[in-house]
Amino acid sequence: MCMRARKTEIICTGSELLSGKLNLYVPLFHEKLLPLGFEITREQSPGDTLREIADCIKGALTRADLVVVCGGLGPTFDDLTRQAAASALKKKLVYSNAQDCALKAKYGLAKLPPNLADQCLKLAGAKTIENRNGTAAGQEIACKNKLVVLLPGPRHEWEPMFKDCLEADLKRFFSVRGGAPEMLKLKISGLGEVTAEKLLRPVMKRFKEARYTILAGPWTVEFIITAGAKGEMQSAKCKTEERSSTIAEIEKACRKILGNKIYGVNGDTLEAGAGALLCGAGLTLSCAESCTGGLLSSLITDSPGSSAYFKGSAVAYSNAAKTRLLKVRPQTLKKYGAVSELCAREMALGAKKLFSSDYALAITGIAGPEGGTPKKPVGTVCFALMGPGKTNTFTRRFHGERTFIKRCAANFALDELRKVIE
Amino acid sequence: MCMRARKTEIICTGSELLSGKLNLYVPLFHEKLLPLGFEITREQSPGDTLREIADCIKGALTRADLVVVCGGLGPTFDDLTRQAAASALKKKLVYSNAQDCALKAKYGLAKLPPNLADQCLKLAGAKTIENRNGTAAGQEIACKNKLVVLLPGPRHEWEPMFKDCLEADLKRFFSVRGGAPEMLKLKISGLGEVTAEKLLRPVMKRFKEARYTILAGPWTVEFIITAGAKGEMQSAKCKTEERSSTIAEIEKACRKILGNKIYGVNGDTLEAGAGALLCGAGLTLSCAESCTGGLLSSLITDSPGSSAYFKGSAVAYSNAAKTRLLKVRPQTLKKYGAVSELCAREMALGAKKLFSSDYALAITGIAGPEGGTPKKPVGTVCFALMGPGKTNTFTRRFHGERTFIKRCAANFALDELRKVIE
Repeated sequence: MCMRARKTEIICTGSELLSGKLNLYVPLFHEKLLPLGFEITREQSPGDTLREIADCIKGALTRADLVVVCGGLGPTFDDLTRQAAASALKKKLVYSNAQDCALKAKYGLAKLPPNLADQCLKLAGAKTIENRNGTAAGQEIACKNKLVVLLPGPRHEWEPMFKDCLEADLKRFFSVRGGAPEMLKLKISGLGEVTAEKLLRPVMKRFKEARYTILAGPWTVEFIITAGAKGEMQSAKCKTEERSSTIAEIEKACRKILGNKIYGVNGDTLEAGAGALLCGAGLTLSCAESCTGGLLSSLITDSPGSSAYFKGSAVAYSNAAKTRLLKVRPQTLKKYGAVSELCAREMALGAKKLFSSDYALAITGIAGPEGGTPKKPVGTVCFALMGPGKTNTFTRRFHGERTFIKRCAANFALDELRKVIE
Repeated sequence: MCMRARKTEIICTGSELLSGKLNLYVPLFHEKLLPLGFEITREQSPGDTLREIADCIKGALTRADLVVVCGGLGPTFDDLTRQAAASALKKKLVYSNAQDCALKAKYGLAKLPPNLADQCLKLAGAKTIENRNGTAAGQEIACKNKLVVLLPGPRHEWEPMFKDCLEADLKRFFSVRGGAPEMLKLKISGLGEVTAEKLLRPVMKRFKEARYTILAGPWTVEFIITAGAKGEMQSAKCKTEERSSTIAEIEKACRKILGNKIYGVNGDTLEAGAGALLCGAGLTLSCAESCTGGLLSSLITDSPGSSAYFKGSAVAYSNAAKTRLLKVRPQTLKKYGAVSELCAREMALGAKKLFSSDYALAITGIAGPEGGTPKKPVGTVCFALMGPGKTNTFTRRFHGERTFIKRCAANFALDELRKVIE
């Protein structure tokens, strides 16, 4: 029998999350917890006050099966999660001699200073989760058939705790035996959010038992499919295999509609995908960039091992650099302008020669906010992709702010490269 | 008399925020609300279920003076905020003829389709907030001495509503007369979070009435000072002028300690700062990049108008590109390796000549995860900054993942450039 997804609430402490810092953790918890069968049903950020944190924990326990509190286990005055949890759960804090010994050994101390000694306080009845990368141990405590987990704030401290201990503990406590909900992200390029939704509507109508989210990006769209995550929507007799086959069927149906507009799944990126194709074919790449200003080559070199296929880029921001470095002809610039397919073609040729690469990608355009004309408005970008055989040129117009237009242009170029090599 | 900061809770609807999408809005709301005297005391993300959203609104109203609900006002099945608010506040939904007329006029329709007609539903007694950039109007409704505000989800729709209407309405409703809390972000480079905290501790001890947050970044730290935002901590007799002088005094005390390690305030960036200095002095810059792979020049060209001072970059990822493009001597590569200050110096010279710029910045290092050696471990980066007069070289080691090391290196280079031109 497949499991009903367990309701989970995440509580992220830290006043900085309410005063300017982005909360980067919720998607990370989602990725860790969903495969184990836990669906996040609410997230709360209470700030560093004891009463607020305790109130969030108390409220979450009335609704969720699993409550994860992240942060506030450090050694300073504003770390109040232990105390807040004790108050919310009506448990005493007891001194953990084991944690005391562990910390003494870790730091070679005969006696712990007061702030480290604070970190030995444990909720009565809690299990300690070892922290390999810091001083703040995690804690797990059962409240009847529910579980409260306290984790330290830094990602590199709490993330290993999942593999080390939490995954097994959660499975044991909630008797999860496979059958967890499944998620699939389809990565799509070259379509807007609205068009993607329109094209995919028949799939969503056909497979009503799954849930769908569409997220727009620069020249890309993510289509997120979740099957079996919504306990209430799922019949008790559904089987794991059935659900797996559902995800596979939905993927197949999407691919039938979108074809090679799907460039990958889950964590795949355009830059890593294009890189893998080059690497597999033993081909090399160079770039000539104007309006993207180095973003294209920076994205390509975000992939470890990119030196195997990436030779370099000439960021020719001025016309002088275009003629000198890339041998763009002055008459091309004069007659057609720097933002023209012919200029892009000559830039690509220049880069291909300069770096002796098999492929060359050139981008030249108007990222804005200034520099647009009625004929070439802001967002107009020309591309050339020169391969061993032929050269393709393109002109596209992107909409948005300067940095968004840069990213759209870089993604478009990577996408065309991928399609040509495929 | 200065105002006590009003407690504010933010509720962000949308199941995507619980299943993979980052919540980018809380910092934006913080920046809009703090200057008006509203402190965010809790944020909740309930997902798209009527019961969850209603429960969040109900809870928030018991604690906060102002409750802002963002999202769920759209035309599709999963937009439930109107209904949830009606349930939480025990108000009826009434049809707004004014909104009906406005939408008909906007779209040139004689009759609204059902999904648009839904968007004319209004909480009884609510004020409509016009949406210049979409179909979903906002709503404001008073509940005794508290205010609930419903806003559409897309940023470009709700953000203009603040200037258009909300700022004035909030001031009127809560009788805010100046005296709002103030915030100052000091942008610091070249110090870790721990060192910065240690150096700034005397300031925090001296000015106990303010609140402080330290956020670590790549080669940078943000020190956020908030004065007058914490109602409970503030005596009723404090005056606005006193508080302004406090922020100014704290800034002065910080600058005395940190000197030119403070590179800016609030939204300032290293790249825009260095660009402004170059522009002001009529100087130009070029780059030669190896391990940063174009990131440095991409950051520089993120600033509008950077073409005035930025000539271009040679991204020389391979040794061949270094010798061919930048005229690095083969014996330098052979004897000292590509990751050496001498190689960086020759790269800078090459770029300076190639682009005929006043300054040239060169970066060569090991971004990892592969390529490290005992003598030159992953994260080792060599720099050269060649100016009209002299050349400075540096070697630093950064710690973290590949993309973080790239960003640290780019920020370090920009920081040295700034210090030299200053």
